[in-house]
Amino acid sequence: MAKIAPLSGFPEFLPAQRYVEQEVTAALARTFELHGFANIETRAVEPLDQLLRKGDTSKEVYLLRRLQEGTGEGKPESASGIGLHFDLTVPFARYVLEHAGKLEFPFRRYQIQKVWRGERPQEGRFREFTQADIDIVGRDVLPFHHDVEIARVMLEALSKLDFLPGFRLQVNNRKLIQGFYAGLGVSADGIDEVMRLVDKLDKLDPAQVRSLLVDEAGVSEEQADKALALATIRTGDDSFVDQVRALGVSHDLLDEGLDELAELLRACAPMATTSARIEADLSIARGLDYYTGTVFETRLDGYESLGSICSGGRYDALASDGRTTYPGVGISLGVSRVLVPLLQRGAVVASRSVPSVVLVAVVNEEGRADADTVAGTLRGHGIPCEVAPSAAKFGKQIRHAERRGIPYVWFVQPDGSGEIKDIRSGNQVAADPATWQPPLEDLRPTVITKESDQ
Amino acid sequence: MAKIAPLSGFPEFLPAQRYVEQEVTAALARTFELHGFANIETRAVEPLDQLLRKGDTSKEVYLLRRLQEGTGEGKPESASGIGLHFDLTVPFARYVLEHAGKLEFPFRRYQIQKVWRGERPQEGRFREFTQADIDIVGRDVLPFHHDVEIARVMLEALSKLDFLPGFRLQVNNRKLIQGFYAGLGVSADGIDEVMRLVDKLDKLDPAQVRSLLVDEAGVSEEQADKALALATIRTGDDSFVDQVRALGVSHDLLDEGLDELAELLRACAPMATTSARIEADLSIARGLDYYTGTVFETRLDGYESLGSICSGGRYDALASDGRTTYPGVGISLGVSRVLVPLLQRGAVVASRSVPSVVLVAVVNEEGRADADTVAGTLRGHGIPCEVAPSAAKFGKQIRHAERRGIPYVWFVQPDGSGEIKDIRSGNQVAADPATWQPPLEDLRPTVITKESDQ
Repeated sequence: MAKIAPLSGFPEFLPAQRYVEQEVTAALARTFELHGFANIETRAVEPLDQLLRKGDTSKEVYLLRRLQEGTGEGKPESASGIGLHFDLTVPFARYVLEHAGKLEFPFRRYQIQKVWRGERPQEGRFREFTQADIDIVGRDVLPFHHDVEIARVMLEALSKLDFLPGFRLQVNNRKLIQGFYAGLGVSADGIDEVMRLVDKLDKLDPAQVRSLLVDEAGVSEEQADKALALATIRTGDDSFVDQVRALGVSHDLLDEGLDELAELLRACAPMATTSARIEADLSIARGLDYYTGTVFETRLDGYESLGSICSGGRYDALASDGRTTYPGVGISLGVSRVLVPLLQRGAVVASRSVPSVVLVAVVNEEGRADADTVAGTLRGHGIPCEVAPSAAKFGKQIRHAERRGIPYVWFVQPDGSGEIKDIRSGNQVAADPATWQPPLEDLRPTVITKESDQ
Repeated sequence: MAKIAPLSGFPEFLPAQRYVEQEVTAALARTFELHGFANIETRAVEPLDQLLRKGDTSKEVYLLRRLQEGTGEGKPESASGIGLHFDLTVPFARYVLEHAGKLEFPFRRYQIQKVWRGERPQEGRFREFTQADIDIVGRDVLPFHHDVEIARVMLEALSKLDFLPGFRLQVNNRKLIQGFYAGLGVSADGIDEVMRLVDKLDKLDPAQVRSLLVDEAGVSEEQADKALALATIRTGDDSFVDQVRALGVSHDLLDEGLDELAELLRACAPMATTSARIEADLSIARGLDYYTGTVFETRLDGYESLGSICSGGRYDALASDGRTTYPGVGISLGVSRVLVPLLQRGAVVASRSVPSVVLVAVVNEEGRADADTVAGTLRGHGIPCEVAPSAAKFGKQIRHAERRGIPYVWFVQPDGSGEIKDIRSGNQVAADPATWQPPLEDLRPTVITKESDQ
């Protein structure tokens, strides 16, 4: 057999780590479902022409090719034009168009799936990773209150992940930025360029961005200063409105953006806590993506180097088939981006590596059927358990449980009765498999948050 | 935008169908966890040399290639040598070797993931599909009682899928077949060939197979007749032993196989029902796979054309790193193979397309915050709900609920109190969002089995 080695960029979890991931996705799904989002999964592949609609991500696409392609079997073109999806938005837009006749609008869905990008692996960047997306898509129209809803639902979902470090959800509005630049007198052509350059503030210092604005976007020094002033505004409530007004710029689109963002902040601020914050951050633009209103990013306290862990926004045309346009608003949580660093640093872990609450010990192979019966009775009322693989000495069977974190060992007594030992305390008591129940906290593995060593 | 069309072989579900799939995988997971199986997921890709170890499936592999490969970005070789996994056994064997030092043996895992095969799509055969596997793998040794356990766990898991048509789990043992042929005097070299030809009984009639045995495998007519006689034996208990003995063949390996298969039948027969059957079927061989003892297949009543929906067996060397060998036993359920035909024929469906139990109606946009508050209170005690997207006439809001199958509509009254209408009965009563509970059967969508129109 060939040498076995991990593949860079394709993280994989041990069972106790995978349990944490399952708990996280289950908790996310519970919140999304409480808000009426239906789950869907889309196929892993899309036609290449769909994947390449966003020009700047084309280099990240994995193409598929059948190994025997062109040797007479099958139709080469059917596979050569497909690739793995690199996000869940492109497939969702295609799904909406393909199934529009069978969906009810506004359509609310959540989707938790793996995506693939052929990019160079680095911290927080993987070639295979899991995303959790919620989107609401309308037919022709989609009221703004759905933007508020998306923010509230994700804020609630993230707040319920106990193990998560603190975070802040940063919100801005493209109408606000574009209206502000237009009100400044920047030409329609120049607005995108100014937005693109201001977006570099997370990598360059303000003086450098100011030079670029003047040299590359051709705006005046005063325009550059105001654009930079706008990008420094950051408030946890709707007081950003007054700060923007103080810059003395006016434009209808700016007003619309200010109203929307203020409404969103007022609706979300009451949910905020010291660890789950929301703020208007007027530097957020979401680069070249096709957002047309609200935009979201999220930073994790102490893990700022990961970049945004949860991003999204409003598309006036998430999808269109020429006759009908489907506006949408959504947000996407990078589940792997958050979890992999936490799991690799041991900051979170499951209390045991198996679901079993009880190991039923085996006295000898003739007694295995009795042990199976006890296990079956325990399972009958919902207690996960396993039977010892061999009739080894009891000390060895107890170590089998210990190594997996199984808290209880059941001993079938010679007279057919049972005793159960809590191997953490050593406490052993008589028990009836038909009625025995563990304390609720032992029924399932628990997610333990450890002091991070970062 | 390019024309949107389904991709043949890549089935996708509408939300109400996806709900059924989620319920099925959740039910499977519950059973597997009750028996102490831990969940893992492996990455979607494996190095090509791992994927091609089973020679006869090589033509089904999808290779991955980065779109920009060879243009100076990244390392071409890192991606050119990987492909999508075509089952969950090859990745599991690799996972065991890669993580052996961090796993506890015997290691029991379940894995529910998509796999990909570039084969020609046909009924029950897809290019992307979901499998649910359970395996137990030991280090150096793995007692036979784990073969029994695997059969019992899958039998229990399948039995709990209420909507499933009746099925029969067919079991055989390679030692039994090989020992029988050896006892017949077939040469060591000829045994595999005889097994391969007898395996054609599901496609050819016995006379044709008999000719092939004589002409191709070079066995005598008497040997051919006995081999065919063995393959016709099929019993629901351990009475197959006497039928085999009556053929007058003896061999140590045959005895071992008979003992194992009889033990398995005796342990599983008590679990059988008229719709969930288990039988020793001595025609089952599982073709060219590397099984060394127990082999499993499963047929679904009325859907025999799908072939085996659930297959597996014992490998004496599931994995090996040269120093250590890891024997394993497992079984793999073709979740998509079973579900896609049932869902496409409308034989099963969910009672509603959204998780929402309640639609909270909106009187006017000024009242949306009140509706949000009611919805938040309901969610606070676990009731999934959504707020009407617009303050349309109540008739239209009720139709919004009806079209999605949401059973209740909540009306906020002018005085702040609430009334809830069961839109199926039209019954409307006063209710308090802090305490209102739906009947338990309305809390989640249910899976409805319809008369199949096949």
